[in-house]
Amino acid sequence: MGQKAFQDYYPDTLSHCYGCGRLNKHGLQIKSYWDGDETVCTFHPKPYHTAIPGYVYGGLIASLIDCHGTGTAAAAAYRAEGRAMDTDPPLRFLTGSLRVEYLRPTPLDGPLELRGRVKEVKGRKVVVAVSVFAQGEMRVRGEVVAIQMPEHLMPESR
Amino acid sequence: MGQKAFQDYYPDTLSHCYGCGRLNKHGLQIKSYWDGDETVCTFHPKPYHTAIPGYVYGGLIASLIDCHGTGTAAAAAYRAEGRAMDTDPPLRFLTGSLRVEYLRPTPLDGPLELRGRVKEVKGRKVVVAVSVFAQGEMRVRGEVVAIQMPEHLMPESR
Repeated sequence: MGQKAFQDYYPDTLSHCYGCGRLNKHGLQIKSYWDGDETVCTFHPKPYHTAIPGYVYGGLIASLIDCHGTGTAAAAAYRAEGRAMDTDPPLRFLTGSLRVEYLRPTPLDGPLELRGRVKEVKGRKVVVAVSVFAQGEMRVRGEVVAIQMPEHLMPESR
Repeated sequence: MGQKAFQDYYPDTLSHCYGCGRLNKHGLQIKSYWDGDETVCTFHPKPYHTAIPGYVYGGLIASLIDCHGTGTAAAAAYRAEGRAMDTDPPLRFLTGSLRVEYLRPTPLDGPLELRGRVKEVKGRKVVVAVSVFAQGEMRVRGEVVAIQMPEHLMPESR
């Protein structure tokens, strides 16, 4: 993909997140991109990311939804301001709440595709709906209410 | 604690879950216990379980709520049937849905305490409310709707 991932625009000090920080060696390092008006993230679970044998762990899926949701929120906030993600001031989002519905078991063999849809951008709040597909079928549906990070929690960015 | 953890009663074939399986070497291996009518789980996050520096990753907290919730659901189902967790047939639960509200940031230094409360046991469904405390203060509130595992997903237990 020619695009740079949302997460690759995060300043270094905000790139240690277990789910999406490119500097967290132990983490999931997810990457999210625009695909038209939706956002997409492809993730390859490891064999140990299991729930019952053969199926993906629900907590992992919740984590992917969480970080793809906050990444989508940041990208949508920049887009709403009509500026690129490498312009100042940086916008970062925290999860206010997370809702996940496990519609059917998610097979562990093969990639997961997460698709995000921005439902609302209002003040410091962005609501993102996320659907998780495996083998072409929707398995999990989630929603993230993301809140723009308050200044006192923003580490000095570089 | 003199008690055996709920998760230590799970049959071997159902003990590979990334969140709570005692046989998953890469996993979180959480342990849940009764404490009167509530259930409790203490978890020590690793330094890399971070979101922004100094705070716990929300996806980890969602994972802990998930597995403490389904563990509590199993324990509650046995208790409702008036039998011990090592009696047959084994009862195991999957997550139907998960809801997590991040009330305030969760500091990374020190243990997390999860407390579960059974809200409802009805047929194959158990609803569990989970509160997450750090440094004596409630940080996160969640709810798990757990569904008894259908027979066709139950691996042969031993």
